[in-house]
Amino acid sequence: MGPGPVDADPRVLRAMSASLVGQYDPAMTAYMTETMALYREVFVTQNEQTFLVDGTSRAGIEAALVSLVEPGDRVLVPVFGRFGHLLTEIAERCGAEVHTIEVPWGEVFTPEQVEEAVARVRPKVLAVVQGDTATTMCQPLADLGEICARHDVLLYCDATASVGGNELRADDWRLDVVTAGLQKCLGGPSGSAPITLSERAVAVIDDRRHVEAGIATDTDVARGVRIASNYFDLAMVMDYWGERRLNHHTEATSMLYGARECARLLVAEGMDAAIERHRLHGAAMLAGVRGLGLEVFGDVTHKMNNVVAVHIPAGIDGDGARAAMLTDYGIEIGTSFGPLHGKVWRIGTMGYNARRDAVMVTLAALEQVLRSGGADVTAGGGVGAAAEVYS
Amino acid sequence: MGPGPVDADPRVLRAMSASLVGQYDPAMTAYMTETMALYREVFVTQNEQTFLVDGTSRAGIEAALVSLVEPGDRVLVPVFGRFGHLLTEIAERCGAEVHTIEVPWGEVFTPEQVEEAVARVRPKVLAVVQGDTATTMCQPLADLGEICARHDVLLYCDATASVGGNELRADDWRLDVVTAGLQKCLGGPSGSAPITLSERAVAVIDDRRHVEAGIATDTDVARGVRIASNYFDLAMVMDYWGERRLNHHTEATSMLYGARECARLLVAEGMDAAIERHRLHGAAMLAGVRGLGLEVFGDVTHKMNNVVAVHIPAGIDGDGARAAMLTDYGIEIGTSFGPLHGKVWRIGTMGYNARRDAVMVTLAALEQVLRSGGADVTAGGGVGAAAEVYS
Repeated sequence: MGPGPVDADPRVLRAMSASLVGQYDPAMTAYMTETMALYREVFVTQNEQTFLVDGTSRAGIEAALVSLVEPGDRVLVPVFGRFGHLLTEIAERCGAEVHTIEVPWGEVFTPEQVEEAVARVRPKVLAVVQGDTATTMCQPLADLGEICARHDVLLYCDATASVGGNELRADDWRLDVVTAGLQKCLGGPSGSAPITLSERAVAVIDDRRHVEAGIATDTDVARGVRIASNYFDLAMVMDYWGERRLNHHTEATSMLYGARECARLLVAEGMDAAIERHRLHGAAMLAGVRGLGLEVFGDVTHKMNNVVAVHIPAGIDGDGARAAMLTDYGIEIGTSFGPLHGKVWRIGTMGYNARRDAVMVTLAALEQVLRSGGADVTAGGGVGAAAEVYS
Repeated sequence: MGPGPVDADPRVLRAMSASLVGQYDPAMTAYMTETMALYREVFVTQNEQTFLVDGTSRAGIEAALVSLVEPGDRVLVPVFGRFGHLLTEIAERCGAEVHTIEVPWGEVFTPEQVEEAVARVRPKVLAVVQGDTATTMCQPLADLGEICARHDVLLYCDATASVGGNELRADDWRLDVVTAGLQKCLGGPSGSAPITLSERAVAVIDDRRHVEAGIATDTDVARGVRIASNYFDLAMVMDYWGERRLNHHTEATSMLYGARECARLLVAEGMDAAIERHRLHGAAMLAGVRGLGLEVFGDVTHKMNNVVAVHIPAGIDGDGARAAMLTDYGIEIGTSFGPLHGKVWRIGTMGYNARRDAVMVTLAALEQVLRSGGADVTAGGGVGAAAEVYS
């Protein structure tokens, strides 16, 4: 019940134990094509180029940025938590001239703040996190795409922690590139990074196409500044997932089975229903921790559905209480980073763990652990408040 | 029965369906530490820094090269097949000044050829493939480490296709960095890249250490030229696997379970026994294809144990025969790349498929497919020759 990774859906784990098939077996290429279609529904997009990067969510971020950004390009990162710093760090390693704007942890940006910075910096790429588990905040994106389109800026969004549990509409919001991971609201294990790219983003990457020696044909003329990574060269990865099926990496078959099952379950549930499920269980957990007398961190109106941060009560040993939750009750809750380190716990309700029994048992256990630590808690206050939300 | 990826051992797939645990759960960090110890046995090394890169085997190659190589460094690649070209391509993207030497496909280099080039180029890194499935050749490495040590050159080896099925002794042969994948002789799915680094390689990477902003402490002084990738920054990956457990990527838990099981099974069998198993079944397949009247490609004295390339007989439609093997008999055999494209098939005997029944049924089916295609084959000639090897 931490901020992720969380328990995977048993159906996803079962899917991952299926027998392998060859890289170019018609069954395998059909699975790849199905996976592309399923993730179009997850990202609410018509983007043809919707596929998986073979690595953790951070691999998806790096693939997006290294493929879009040439050395010297300006990148603007609105930082409202730890993962904005990560985007900054990765963009810098791509050779970008990175500009940042910041709000205090626990807040998000207004469209006006972002537009002012876009107009001033004139970046090639605006790189923004949707949901930052470090602060629990969910940055509204609906207006940013229009701002970026007007200023001819590419909009990249890291939706690792948010997609599936919070609304995300890639086409409607004009997001050029979105990346994700399986280990949060998608209910799978870390290790595969779904990605979607708009035609505008694809055109930018196509202008840097250098097909690998030994595979290129006479019509493959290298152009533009070569992408600094082979593994993350999305032009080549698109050729592998696309009709040409040009050999690149050896697709991680078991992870593909898992990623496909994550999306299949979400699409079967319905994306809106999945988001509503996360809203419900997130609201129950929020009410529950308040019912235990805990103070919630940050601007709750912009809190992600799937995680809440609570101040560690005075007098309670934060790490000791987390250890007691894990050792005595088998429930993991999260510590925190940076300015919040040692000050808050983070409790998730996402993916397979966005369930009533998971919320209730976590609150019941937390009440006991707080009481053992000497906190003044109302007996039944947590589960009672959550039950009220459910009723 | 292709050159990989091949069927995974069912025990590996079962291990991958185990429930997830949290990233810093004591059970998870214990699994990570166990996995490091198991891969030390696989690579026959005492190297402390032996762990997994979260991606396919190509991710391991890129992590090794981008972490070792600074822009402008000289890298020497002896090219004897497709994967030498891949090392060249990746090293170029790292900004290296790449020098190559080549032998015709189907041959390997002598130590003298390599030493002459090392003395002439004076590279920082010699990057060499051990086994190249494109040609089936296995480059002898025993002498190269001593040559590199004498010339103060770092020796990187891509052992993806060879380790587990052919002798590899990282310490005895003074290999500074070795990377692998699971999908060949290790009997698992693609998606995790085991790596081992000598103290000399670690020192080079430590001199480029830049701990991520937001995680660095006052004692973490950035030094050297920053590694161009965040995801593949082995200094940070080592801090994640090491005692500091500094947050980097979110470890791909299911892939780690799989990688751990691959190594556990190999170590339980004994590395020497596993190599002998690959030798035996490779010898049976070699005898079998010859028994079918097929001509073997390349210098057989340097053939890898786990794959054989055979010339497609005149008059046989190579792709049609492969399709018949898959459709009628459920057996995949491989096509080929580059100068061998359309000229040879590649047949593997590796990992879980290094088994007597897999060899025999492949030869039985291939006899039928060759006969259907109009080739002149001796009835029973393939399985008979293989059976003689087994008896």
